[in-house]
Amino acid sequence: MIIDGHAHLILPVEKHLALMETAGVERTLLFTTRVHPERAHDLETLNQELRIFNEIIAGKVNNDLQSFQQAVSEAAQVIQQYPERFTGFANVPLGLTQEETATWIEKYVLPAGFRGFGEFTMQSGAVHQLEVIFACASEYGNLPLWVHTLPPLNLDDIHQLVALSRRYPRVPLILGHMGGMYWRETIALAKEVPQTYLDLSGTITFLGPRIAIHELPMRTLFSSDAPFGHPLIARTIVEQATVDTAVRRRVLGENLAELLHLN
Amino acid sequence: MIIDGHAHLILPVEKHLALMETAGVERTLLFTTRVHPERAHDLETLNQELRIFNEIIAGKVNNDLQSFQQAVSEAAQVIQQYPERFTGFANVPLGLTQEETATWIEKYVLPAGFRGFGEFTMQSGAVHQLEVIFACASEYGNLPLWVHTLPPLNLDDIHQLVALSRRYPRVPLILGHMGGMYWRETIALAKEVPQTYLDLSGTITFLGPRIAIHELPMRTLFSSDAPFGHPLIARTIVEQATVDTAVRRRVLGENLAELLHLN
Repeated sequence: MIIDGHAHLILPVEKHLALMETAGVERTLLFTTRVHPERAHDLETLNQELRIFNEIIAGKVNNDLQSFQQAVSEAAQVIQQYPERFTGFANVPLGLTQEETATWIEKYVLPAGFRGFGEFTMQSGAVHQLEVIFACASEYGNLPLWVHTLPPLNLDDIHQLVALSRRYPRVPLILGHMGGMYWRETIALAKEVPQTYLDLSGTITFLGPRIAIHELPMRTLFSSDAPFGHPLIARTIVEQATVDTAVRRRVLGENLAELLHLN
Repeated sequence: MIIDGHAHLILPVEKHLALMETAGVERTLLFTTRVHPERAHDLETLNQELRIFNEIIAGKVNNDLQSFQQAVSEAAQVIQQYPERFTGFANVPLGLTQEETATWIEKYVLPAGFRGFGEFTMQSGAVHQLEVIFACASEYGNLPLWVHTLPPLNLDDIHQLVALSRRYPRVPLILGHMGGMYWRETIALAKEVPQTYLDLSGTITFLGPRIAIHELPMRTLFSSDAPFGHPLIARTIVEQATVDTAVRRRVLGENLAELLHLN
């Protein structure tokens, strides 16, 4: 099964399904979204859509509980509408107590059938906020976490994230975007920590996916990060980075299907 | 004609030609190279190849005249061997006087048939070193310059580069990698300055090429930055970012063919 391991809902959903068709993607792991850059057609409208994007990523705006709840509810509706095409991860607010977080998860995440938590984004120096999330993920059957490892996070933050992961060895941790410009260091860290996975979206050089797949063929995951990326381009990267077709199939979907117990 | 607008020589050259075949690329604009990451097969050998890469980019090592001369001579040989498949830009050392630079260009660059200068890389704060190059390019028939605009350059450096370009309006300036994370600002700058071109390699999000082509269809250039990028992936990006086939043809080769007076 070909699974796009990370995409934000593109509106209207028919446009998202058409992109999946173009790339031969059978299922997409969907993440909630609070901006829609795919609606922009030029620089001016794009700047309007992305105006508050960096503030959202840093957790400074759209960070209230109602905003999270609305985004999760939107994603849940699409997943219920197309259960054969979408599986979802739910975003969970940071900064709550463990009890408050558990209440939130039980109310909004588990009943809607989400299979994991994320995408988590935060300011540099704030990785410790994920401690509560790791603890809850561990309680609810070791659901996987998906963490954005591009700026504002830096290499120190990525080290702290992996150190936190070592304390929860049964909770799978997906290193979203594979550390960005720190991809070589992130691959090296992932090699040491067996419950970590490398997400291939947003990488700046083709060398990153090629070396990641070579080093960790069972723990590297194809994904587009649509609408910031594109499923066909992301699939072409994996196809050009692999020679062995069994490895290619694992990266394009089998690794994620096993992790999420799909089929 | 489909032209890969920026690639470093992959060794052996047959491997480079095979990559071009895979992507349907008829001609490649070749740049000299002093590292060969394509030879690495795993993280350890890649780290060895890239050990000195950041120092080279910052102009700290391999920066002697002999090292430049050798790289230019290697590229010239390949171009003479395959004149139908490769066209070249020559790197020129920074930090020489205008007279020394002119002597160097007359001795090593012009006789070997290079069509422009670059890839220029430098430390942040050192963009003024290009003044001599702009002056020489202007003297030798307005040959185009190709400047790397990723780190260590930052947005201030990119502003300085474009300010310098405004003083030489007849010298085409290719903004290599389109400013990296500053791609929105770089597109906006390029819109104001008609002799600038946007190079599509190394961009971190599909939104960059899509918006760049929309805003400047006659001044946006397809390129792979192989071996850091891959021609087929780069071509897929342009194809997915364009609907109008006339625009697609311009970006995939016609813009660059006009700029370099090819055919």
